[in-house]
Amino acid sequence: RVNGDRLWDMLMEMAKIGPGIAGGNNRQTLTDEDAEGRRLFQRWCEDAGLTMGVDQMGTMFMTRAGTDPDALPVYVGSHLDTQPTGGKYDGVLGVLAGLELVRTMNDLGIKTKHPIVVTNWTNEEGARFAPAMLASGVFAGMHTLDYAYNRKDMEGKSFGDELKRIGWLGDEEVGARKMHAYFEYHIEQGPILEAEQKQIGVVTHCQGLWWLEFTLTGREAHTGSTPMNMRVNAGLAMARILEMVQEVAMSEQPGAVGGVGQMKFSPNSRNVLPGTVVFTVDIRTPSQEKLDRMRAKIEAQAAEICAALGVGCSVEAVGHFDPVTFDETLVASVRNAAERLGYSHMNIISGAGHDACWAARVAPSTMIMCPCVGGLSHNEAEEISKDWAAAGCDVLLQAVLETAEI
Amino acid sequence: RVNGDRLWDMLMEMAKIGPGIAGGNNRQTLTDEDAEGRRLFQRWCEDAGLTMGVDQMGTMFMTRAGTDPDALPVYVGSHLDTQPTGGKYDGVLGVLAGLELVRTMNDLGIKTKHPIVVTNWTNEEGARFAPAMLASGVFAGMHTLDYAYNRKDMEGKSFGDELKRIGWLGDEEVGARKMHAYFEYHIEQGPILEAEQKQIGVVTHCQGLWWLEFTLTGREAHTGSTPMNMRVNAGLAMARILEMVQEVAMSEQPGAVGGVGQMKFSPNSRNVLPGTVVFTVDIRTPSQEKLDRMRAKIEAQAAEICAALGVGCSVEAVGHFDPVTFDETLVASVRNAAERLGYSHMNIISGAGHDACWAARVAPSTMIMCPCVGGLSHNEAEEISKDWAAAGCDVLLQAVLETAEI
Ligand SMILES: NC(=O)NCCC(=O)O
Ligand SMILES: NC(=O)NCCC(=O)O
Repeated sequence: RVNGDRLWDMLMEMAKIGPGIAGGNNRQTLTDEDAEGRRLFQRWCEDAGLTMGVDQMGTMFMTRAGTDPDALPVYVGSHLDTQPTGGKYDGVLGVLAGLELVRTMNDLGIKTKHPIVVTNWTNEEGARFAPAMLASGVFAGMHTLDYAYNRKDMEGKSFGDELKRIGWLGDEEVGARKMHAYFEYHIEQGPILEAEQKQIGVVTHCQGLWWLEFTLTGREAHTGSTPMNMRVNAGLAMARILEMVQEVAMSEQPGAVGGVGQMKFSPNSRNVLPGTVVFTVDIRTPSQEKLDRMRAKIEAQAAEICAALGVGCSVEAVGHFDPVTFDETLVASVRNAAERLGYSHMNIISGAGHDACWAARVAPSTMIMCPCVGGLSHNEAEEISKDWAAAGCDVLLQAVLETAEI
Repeated sequence: RVNGDRLWDMLMEMAKIGPGIAGGNNRQTLTDEDAEGRRLFQRWCEDAGLTMGVDQMGTMFMTRAGTDPDALPVYVGSHLDTQPTGGKYDGVLGVLAGLELVRTMNDLGIKTKHPIVVTNWTNEEGARFAPAMLASGVFAGMHTLDYAYNRKDMEGKSFGDELKRIGWLGDEEVGARKMHAYFEYHIEQGPILEAEQKQIGVVTHCQGLWWLEFTLTGREAHTGSTPMNMRVNAGLAMARILEMVQEVAMSEQPGAVGGVGQMKFSPNSRNVLPGTVVFTVDIRTPSQEKLDRMRAKIEAQAAEICAALGVGCSVEAVGHFDPVTFDETLVASVRNAAERLGYSHMNIISGAGHDACWAARVAPSTMIMCPCVGGLSHNEAEEISKDWAAAGCDVLLQAVLETAEI
């Protein structure tokens, strides 16, 4: 079993970098805080005897050598970047649990045939640069390096420039590494494990996603002197689209969600009807059929809503992955580990996207989840207990040892 | 008659300060550009023999002496500040037309019994600091100086600090001046005069307004892993309120408007349901009864919408004026001037708020309007013709001369 206190101490230490305003973290990708968090993780890893490789997306690969020079490594990881008002565990737990299992192996003098690589993927959150899971997406061949480098944040800064600026542009070709297996341990970010009082989520699938960025073009005009019938009101069209997204998601229950987190009015002045309204619709479901249908419905109905108001409507997909089925053998090894360790467990579908969803395209992959209080995540109040954290790490250790072969 | 070319040249010269991105202007109140515009206007006024007074709100009063030392001045004015993406005429026309009529009087050697004061009111637009017509509001005793100084822009900078910073904090007590009359010449900012093919709008009333700033409190949560029935979705509540505002305004037709120009999601991340959504509803109508009813309906229905979703809802009134009836004698003098000059004219109700609405509380006041192309304003594409500009200025000259007594 791992050292739960040591894991917890690392989590609390990392949380001091890029503190939030309400107990959580703001350590967004490619900020100075991200760079500082990476340096701390690097130091800890090197102290534990790991050697570092960094690829051209800034992803950190920290390797513990195996006994067989020809065996492909087992990868374990997640991400250290956070939302602007994020929690202390989302992502961070999976990276530091990878380090904790290495420390435990060091303590016990355990050697494995396959090397073990603890991984910190760049820009998992997608908060600063859409899409989410950007580095793992390039790794899996879903995006080109060029596409990734040209992603822009809200201030117009590019991913490529910012990666260079913070000093974490590596030289490894992205995706050149071959994986024997990929494991990701993460908090659930939803309410199911807590409600079902299970310690371990054995993740069998991940739901698919579309991020649809709408740009509505109205006519900037005075809110007071422009009669109702002369308005080309992009704000009203936006309101109708949000209500419609809600209806589409409700019509696909259970197992579908839809909502909007990002919104921008221009010029954003109280007495000016907006010239443009830009917002991103986030829809998800584990069913490929539902996912396709929801997207089609939303685009068609948005076009109708806008046409009725004379508002211009363009849609760009700024994020997408299809539903994922994780590797059967690895899933079984996680389930067996939980069983052996005496932890309560259940199968679960990941509601959030994870780097494991892209890794699954190029290697056998799976995930382990632990509960989080009230199902709350992407909120500074995100919380887990030390015991929950440790239990998942124990399962991770067992499953990795089985896969990496002692 | 005034010199239409000279007026036009001044308009074009002023438009060079704080140019927009699409042919209009961004010369928001208390910016460096505002300060530069003020200096240009000051220089022109002093060249025309006017003497300057500046009050503690930064309002500029440029005086042409009268022949009777006991006669109260006739004020003529509007504002030089613009929207962030504003036009070249909104406000500016009324200020520079005041200067042009003085120049014409100088050319013709005309003296008046009452002094004439050309006025540039600070922060008419309310784009940077709500509410609109802030300086004239303090002048008329509607707000305290303290209230005005503490208004904040979106970056948290205060009106008082910014007024000092740009060097236009004057020493005159605000509202100490007594007015014989106040005239404001402005573009219509609406479609009526153009549609009716009239050169002059004789403004009899101004519609009343409420700016209701809503702060909706939802629960920040992951857009993917938070089931629909566990969401406290402030974005959805916002969408329903926007639709409801539209319905309330439509139910009061004709003669009522409602819309939203300013919107802010927090934390504004694609995969985070917003913790807070802040936006300002702008409702207007010339009828006091309708104005009261619309506000009551909107607040009551918004509370219901939010309660049904579990979303917190608070409302702050950040702008308000009741409908205004302008002075009968001054209105008649405008109408007679238009008639005498052979300009087509009609009575009109101002759809926008103006400094004249506050001046009307402390002095006989009225307004003159000229058409604008397509009724478009609060848009960089705002346009008028040189002839339209000159015609209104001719009417202004005649009405002022009658009131100031030759
Ligand atoms: N785990 C997580 O929050 N990932 C961010 C990408 C997503 O929105 O699912
Ligand atoms: N004239 C004008 O646009 N004033 C700004 C205040 C308002 O919104 O009516």
